[in-house]
Amino acid sequence: MGPMPLPANHPWHASATSESPLIRAYTGRPVGERRPVWFMRQAGRSLPEYKKVREGTGMLESCLTPELASEITLQPVRRHDVDAAIFYSDIVVPLKVAGVDVDIAPGIGPVVQRPIRTLADLDAVIRDVPGPEELAAISAGVALTVDGLGSTPLIGFAGAPFTVASYLVEGKPSRDLLHTKALMHSDPVLWDRLLGWVAEVSLAFLRAQVLAGASAIQLFDSWAGALSLADYSTFVAPYSARVLAGVADLGVPRVHFGTSTGELLAAMRDAGADVVGIDYRIPLDTGIERLGGHVPVQGNIDPALLFAPWPVLEAHVRDVVARGAAAPGHVVNLGHGVPPETDPTVLTRVVELVHSIAPEPAAAP
Amino acid sequence: MGPMPLPANHPWHASATSESPLIRAYTGRPVGERRPVWFMRQAGRSLPEYKKVREGTGMLESCLTPELASEITLQPVRRHDVDAAIFYSDIVVPLKVAGVDVDIAPGIGPVVQRPIRTLADLDAVIRDVPGPEELAAISAGVALTVDGLGSTPLIGFAGAPFTVASYLVEGKPSRDLLHTKALMHSDPVLWDRLLGWVAEVSLAFLRAQVLAGASAIQLFDSWAGALSLADYSTFVAPYSARVLAGVADLGVPRVHFGTSTGELLAAMRDAGADVVGIDYRIPLDTGIERLGGHVPVQGNIDPALLFAPWPVLEAHVRDVVARGAAAPGHVVNLGHGVPPETDPTVLTRVVELVHSIAPEPAAAP
Repeated sequence: MGPMPLPANHPWHASATSESPLIRAYTGRPVGERRPVWFMRQAGRSLPEYKKVREGTGMLESCLTPELASEITLQPVRRHDVDAAIFYSDIVVPLKVAGVDVDIAPGIGPVVQRPIRTLADLDAVIRDVPGPEELAAISAGVALTVDGLGSTPLIGFAGAPFTVASYLVEGKPSRDLLHTKALMHSDPVLWDRLLGWVAEVSLAFLRAQVLAGASAIQLFDSWAGALSLADYSTFVAPYSARVLAGVADLGVPRVHFGTSTGELLAAMRDAGADVVGIDYRIPLDTGIERLGGHVPVQGNIDPALLFAPWPVLEAHVRDVVARGAAAPGHVVNLGHGVPPETDPTVLTRVVELVHSIAPEPAAAP
Repeated sequence: MGPMPLPANHPWHASATSESPLIRAYTGRPVGERRPVWFMRQAGRSLPEYKKVREGTGMLESCLTPELASEITLQPVRRHDVDAAIFYSDIVVPLKVAGVDVDIAPGIGPVVQRPIRTLADLDAVIRDVPGPEELAAISAGVALTVDGLGSTPLIGFAGAPFTVASYLVEGKPSRDLLHTKALMHSDPVLWDRLLGWVAEVSLAFLRAQVLAGASAIQLFDSWAGALSLADYSTFVAPYSARVLAGVADLGVPRVHFGTSTGELLAAMRDAGADVVGIDYRIPLDTGIERLGGHVPVQGNIDPALLFAPWPVLEAHVRDVVARGAAAPGHVVNLGHGVPPETDPTVLTRVVELVHSIAPEPAAAP
């Protein structure tokens, strides 16, 4: 089936979030009085309240239980006063919803029982793209969350086709993605079918979130940085572009992010991103420059600095904020996810600091 | 003890390698008739003859058995006709020689029994920097290898202090090096003692190799790309600089390499590298430009392309060679190590291709 049609009264149109600092920054408008900040992986293992509600429930089960997914999504907003929630999920959730035999093994990550290396493997795995019934738990979780958030926007979440497909090919997390890279070069037909299918599944997952009330989306291509620019452009960007184009009619800002992507930033923008997330490896102003200076950005506090003495972290946050002024919009975030070992009080303090810095750039730096 | 003194008759002075294509390229001189090429991790698991001689011998034991280390180092030179050998070893070998309880677990990597998180941990691990007796197996392995190589140069091998120390801190391979990053920020005194000691151990290991006949050295900072430029410059580069400066009196070219280091290239050069290795993520000419255009480089064939159909790989190799013409010297290599799954006949074919391309750049590109 194709994408779900857009209902005339879909929630985000009427939402109070379009004038929120987050959406203003994502769309290149002045943010008003509050500089927006949130953290990738803000929901999850860094929070004791998360560990408590997750107790006894598997990762994927928690993502597919609307009340639980919603509660986990809301926890960091309550605790840290961040300017956005991001829907609690995992990049393999849409695969699970589509009927793939995938699980998340504690301490390991996504594990696929039958890795895809041949067309026969793919045929054995491919299912119909999930429709509204299969995605009902996602839609319900999002709707509950949006109700709880009020004027704070919710960001819809999905993995990009390359990163999601890499788990299907490798069968488990892999440092160098050799099977995946070998496959893209040695069997372009299988690659196209695999990535095309994953793109459709990710798109259905994202559309369900926006239609249920998400005000923006972020597409995570976590492992894109393992590729050369040439391979990224040929074998990866076209499928990410399908997902990003597939939500264009919904009118929400589309954020695109990956790590080690310093050489890929312009190509990620060209895939159809309205906002590009920048990892911590590259100074933010250098990243903005590589994007041509006219693209809103998100990032890029080094998560390692969350373990530094406060004055070091504070100076770093102020530096990131100052460098972000070169972009038409800047949402403060980490340059990678919150490490599980992070002291959550440090994150709260970072939010307070960011909110204390006047949004308009100082006259003379 | 300090560095070993330089004997008046140390082997590399008299060596036939100073006019070899490798050393000429490393020192920015015209290479003559043969364009130099070798492969990081050319010795090892991609070769059946390696698997045969390693059978029944542990990794570290094989590194510390002179005949075996020498045989393994020579195997790829015989098979592929590459323009350099690199001494077969592992970055934790100098730790082992220094008495650290470290081993290489098959399928996992280096494992340290007692990870270092406190000064007490460090005190329990630190030993005297190894002297000539402790390094005798290394010196003997190098001497045997140099005898077997004739006019083909041997590159001495060592891990850079940050990467080696990361194994001591994490206790095992880690994707995000969180304990290591936390330590550098939270306990700079411990960090300085740890990195300072590892630098001395790595330096002793490298000097032993050059004094026994190696014609160049390569310092591998495999995980430096996990750091921001700021952290790299503050917490890592000074210790790499000590190692590189510590072999300066030996007069051999010093190559420095890490992956995901696109933003760190100039800082790695400034740490004292004569040649910078460039990973496959960045187009080679872009990397050369970031180095100011006046530094010889090494790299940067994407190892993923070793699994591509030959015409794709051939076009890529020719492209890398063409882009390398922008540097005063270019040694063709991969942009990361040879994957264990690589078909070795493909590597041989790449060598033949590189040798078939005339060293002087074409007049009109």
